[in-house]
Amino acid sequence: MELNALHKLGYGMYIIGSYKDDKLNGQVANTVFQITSEPPTVAVSINKNNLTHEYIEASKVFSASILHQETPLPYIGNFGFKSGRDVDKLKGVKYITGETKAPVFTDHATAYLEARVVRGVDVGTHTIYIGKIVNAEILTEDTCMTYEYYHQVKRGTTPKTAPSYIAGEKGGNK
Amino acid sequence: MELNALHKLGYGMYIIGSYKDDKLNGQVANTVFQITSEPPTVAVSINKNNLTHEYIEASKVFSASILHQETPLPYIGNFGFKSGRDVDKLKGVKYITGETKAPVFTDHATAYLEARVVRGVDVGTHTIYIGKIVNAEILTEDTCMTYEYYHQVKRGTTPKTAPSYIAGEKGGNK
Repeated sequence: MELNALHKLGYGMYIIGSYKDDKLNGQVANTVFQITSEPPTVAVSINKNNLTHEYIEASKVFSASILHQETPLPYIGNFGFKSGRDVDKLKGVKYITGETKAPVFTDHATAYLEARVVRGVDVGTHTIYIGKIVNAEILTEDTCMTYEYYHQVKRGTTPKTAPSYIAGEKGGNK
Repeated sequence: MELNALHKLGYGMYIIGSYKDDKLNGQVANTVFQITSEPPTVAVSINKNNLTHEYIEASKVFSASILHQETPLPYIGNFGFKSGRDVDKLKGVKYITGETKAPVFTDHATAYLEARVVRGVDVGTHTIYIGKIVNAEILTEDTCMTYEYYHQVKRGTTPKTAPSYIAGEKGGNK
C-alpha cells in the first residue's frame, strides 16, 4: 500500500476563521469542498486539537478565505504552524468582520465564503463541519493556490494536525 | 452574495468505482479528500440519484482513480454525463478488480485508492461516504488534473448531479 498516493488528491489552500465570545482566530486548511449545490453547502475538516475547532464549536460559524497562488509562505506559516493559544495570529493581518461575525482574512484571498454550521460529523481526530453558505464574495481573479503548488513550488510543509499529514514523511513533522 | 466564489475551491478529478452483486459502475467526482491521517480516511460526496450511490450503498466500498492532467474529455464524458443505468460505461475501458472487488479504472490514472465505507453522512441531495483506505497505489508521476484545469483549459462542463453545479451558469446544464 502506497499511502503517498493520498498526496495526489487535489485541494486548494484556505484560511478558516471563527470566533468565540470576543476572541477571534484563524487557521490554514486544505479540505474545504462543496457538498451540495441546493442549498449551497460546504464542508471543512478541522483537527479537534485546534483552537479554531473550539471556536467553531462555540459560534457554529466559519469563514474560508481562498488563497491566491502567490501567497507568501510566512503568511501561511502564521496561520498554519502556530496556535492561537500561544500567539495572536491576527496581529498585523487584515480582516473584515463577516456577516457571521467570523473574521474574514482578506490579505491574499481571491474570494471568501461564510457558512453557518448545520452539522458536525465526528471522524475521530477531526470534525467535518458542514455549513450552509450565508455569504460569498469574489475579491480578485488571481489564480488560486493549490495544495500541490504549495508543496512542490513553495516547498511548504504540513503540520501534524492536518488531515493530510503522513507520519515520517519528509518535511511532515516540522 | 456571489456563489461563483464556490468555483474557486480547489479539487482534483476522479473516477469513483463501485459494485453491486456482479454489476460494476464508475462515475466522475471532484470531491475526494482526506479527512484523517490516523487511520488514513477519505471522503467522497456522491449524488443520491447516481447509480454509483446505489452500488456503494450495497457493497460499502469504493475506488477512486486520480486522473492525470491530459485525460481526454471523452473519457471523462463517458463517466460523467451518462448513467450506468442507460449504458455500460465499462465497455472499452481498462480496469482492474481491486482488493475491495470494486473496479479500479487505470486508463488515465496517476494513482488510485480503495476504501471501505465506515459511515455515510446524509447531506440532502448527496451522501458523503467516509471510507477507511485499504489499498493505495501510485501508477505514474504525471501531473494530476485539477477541477480548475478541467473547466478552464479543457472547457469541461458540470453535470446537474454534481455537488458543484450552479443552476443557470454557462455550460452548467449540458
